[in-house]
Amino acid sequence: MPVGNVGLPNIIYPINGLKIGVTQANVRYQNRDDLVVFELEQGANTAVVTTQNSFCASPVQLVRQHIKQENPRYLLINTGNANAGTGIDGDKRALATCQALAEKTNSQTEQILPYSTGVIGETLNSEAIITGLDNALQDLSIDNWQRGANAILTTDTVAKIASEKVEIADSDIVYHITGMAKGAGMIRPNMGTMLGFIATDANISTDLLQIMLHELVEKSFNRITVDGDTSTNDCCTLIATGKVGELIDNKNHSHYLPLLQALEKVFVRLATLIVRDGEGATKFITVKVTGGKDTKECCDVAYAVAHSPLVKTAFFASDPNWGRILASVGYAGLADLDTTKISIHLDDVLICQRGQRSDCYQEHAGQGAMNRPEICIHIELGRGQASDTVYTCDLSYEYVKINADYRS
Amino acid sequence: MPVGNVGLPNIIYPINGLKIGVTQANVRYQNRDDLVVFELEQGANTAVVTTQNSFCASPVQLVRQHIKQENPRYLLINTGNANAGTGIDGDKRALATCQALAEKTNSQTEQILPYSTGVIGETLNSEAIITGLDNALQDLSIDNWQRGANAILTTDTVAKIASEKVEIADSDIVYHITGMAKGAGMIRPNMGTMLGFIATDANISTDLLQIMLHELVEKSFNRITVDGDTSTNDCCTLIATGKVGELIDNKNHSHYLPLLQALEKVFVRLATLIVRDGEGATKFITVKVTGGKDTKECCDVAYAVAHSPLVKTAFFASDPNWGRILASVGYAGLADLDTTKISIHLDDVLICQRGQRSDCYQEHAGQGAMNRPEICIHIELGRGQASDTVYTCDLSYEYVKINADYRS
Repeated sequence: MPVGNVGLPNIIYPINGLKIGVTQANVRYQNRDDLVVFELEQGANTAVVTTQNSFCASPVQLVRQHIKQENPRYLLINTGNANAGTGIDGDKRALATCQALAEKTNSQTEQILPYSTGVIGETLNSEAIITGLDNALQDLSIDNWQRGANAILTTDTVAKIASEKVEIADSDIVYHITGMAKGAGMIRPNMGTMLGFIATDANISTDLLQIMLHELVEKSFNRITVDGDTSTNDCCTLIATGKVGELIDNKNHSHYLPLLQALEKVFVRLATLIVRDGEGATKFITVKVTGGKDTKECCDVAYAVAHSPLVKTAFFASDPNWGRILASVGYAGLADLDTTKISIHLDDVLICQRGQRSDCYQEHAGQGAMNRPEICIHIELGRGQASDTVYTCDLSYEYVKINADYRS
Repeated sequence: MPVGNVGLPNIIYPINGLKIGVTQANVRYQNRDDLVVFELEQGANTAVVTTQNSFCASPVQLVRQHIKQENPRYLLINTGNANAGTGIDGDKRALATCQALAEKTNSQTEQILPYSTGVIGETLNSEAIITGLDNALQDLSIDNWQRGANAILTTDTVAKIASEKVEIADSDIVYHITGMAKGAGMIRPNMGTMLGFIATDANISTDLLQIMLHELVEKSFNRITVDGDTSTNDCCTLIATGKVGELIDNKNHSHYLPLLQALEKVFVRLATLIVRDGEGATKFITVKVTGGKDTKECCDVAYAVAHSPLVKTAFFASDPNWGRILASVGYAGLADLDTTKISIHLDDVLICQRGQRSDCYQEHAGQGAMNRPEICIHIELGRGQASDTVYTCDLSYEYVKINADYRS
């Protein structure tokens, strides 16, 4: 069961210039949608960030190559098989699916970006994907975001969609942004998440789009963790179809900031939806670190806390065992950390002051905070002005069960 | 239930020059031994390494101060309370227990090394410790290693003792080494383990002893992990009572190497006993990395694998899901890692060759290896001559249960 508010948006704005087709290709699972095609109209610009895992999957390698060569026209996504750790045969199979789609759409192979998610190390059933392409292409529609978001899931329990519109003041320009993501385990993205696809109808140059994507990912998908494992297949893709407004190609354009803010809302929403749907999650935890010398050390502390199995099991048990939080701050590796300047809040409850239990702390207050399904741990380091935030979930029996059972 | 061979040694050699006293002081738990005193005869030399956690506990700070000032005569160990995150009051209480023991033994406060283990952030019941000192001192005996090892446990399920003797060729000199350790959770020691006390009757200078301790810890307690959490109270203490043989004060002494090798055996045995008794452990896993450019990168890869919750749950399920091992090698952060040179064995089964599934790999062979309670993952990086080894255990329901219940 995911934690808290994980419903679909009231309105999912279609993005003019982008169609989605969905089908059952039986890549691995039967009787479920598992193949998705995105069709981008001529003129759309696309940016991607991909995993930093050295064992990056065959499709991820093709994404990196293809986007350097051509402006993408199609994204091709399958679930059930990650096509990672599959060597040269995996490369060939990923390429074959791109070639088949290019042929059917009169486009070039380099205009296709392939994405795979699922089990690692098994041979990709590329024949099933190629057979399924006709059905997916016949299904293309601007209204398929929800079906597409369902079709890319693996161990996720809910579809993840965020959608926003941006009305530009003193004009009749309205931009739309809609995105989908998948991921529930092997989540500690590094330059991208498991899979994220976000599109806007704004007209943004490719160079600026790539810069924006990096900034957005740093604040969203690169600040979440479920289990600390960085996937072989992480990919986040941002598309600007260019159907609305004039070209935006620099940060000084008056539409840049409102667009960036709305995009950040969509990115953070999608990233936190992944954590809320984290395998076995019963609590959604925000780890906010302030008062650091720089962002990096705040991020290090936040991840030390967010990765600690002892902290995560204490949250699962609703046990205000704040000593575990303190211990994880202590081993985050900060040089010359003066622990007597540190204070820690659980929501509004001051549990730790000057590096020790707060004089006014009462266990029942800590217990009250811990009982909630959504909790903010706020750690003030007292040695600078920098801050950072990481999102995570607790560690439950269910996490072990899901990952002990997966594959079988 | 700990994994595999965790019995006590057939013979526990007493160490001439060192007595141990044990008592029930009711520091936190009732009806169990929880206070231990080590008495070192005049002339013993002692070395310690302590946690690198910034929130190091009050007793750890005193250990660091005292050993700089005087040759220790007494170690004072309590379980049930870690006296960490307790600020100035914690410092005062740790000091008060040292002062009381010094008074009763006509020694100086600086000759006492205090150690605490248990819950973090609670006020230490120093009064109970002081009251218990008389009983502990009356109990002093050279034969109390086993009772002492039991008295320092917290969530451990078995006492951890290793004992060796070293017969020097062409002489009638026989050295003895005996050690005890505790720890089962919050285990990723960094310069020491939860608590380890190792003694020999050899006559080793303090300077050499300290050098030897650092080397020994690097190969044993600094190469184990249960949950990746570095404790606030890690401390490892090595004592040479000097009762046997002539002074050894440099590495060229002919007795140095046989002694070091026997000590390493004791250290590695104690460290791996901690992993075998890891909270909820059902598998004992050795992660051996060879073919690296240097030891550090081998260690980084080994820890990435040993910390991965996905790898650990796959071992719990006896699922040869080798893709997870490969993914964790990939995110260990090695620059320019050529994955096509990597091979991975599960015991004697070659599962991965040239970065992908081995042609000769058959699932039932992998399954056969995974079913065993003790498994070696051997990762060959194919880019150098360095190697390193880390010991860990699987991640089970029981781990979550123990840490969700602890404290309550």
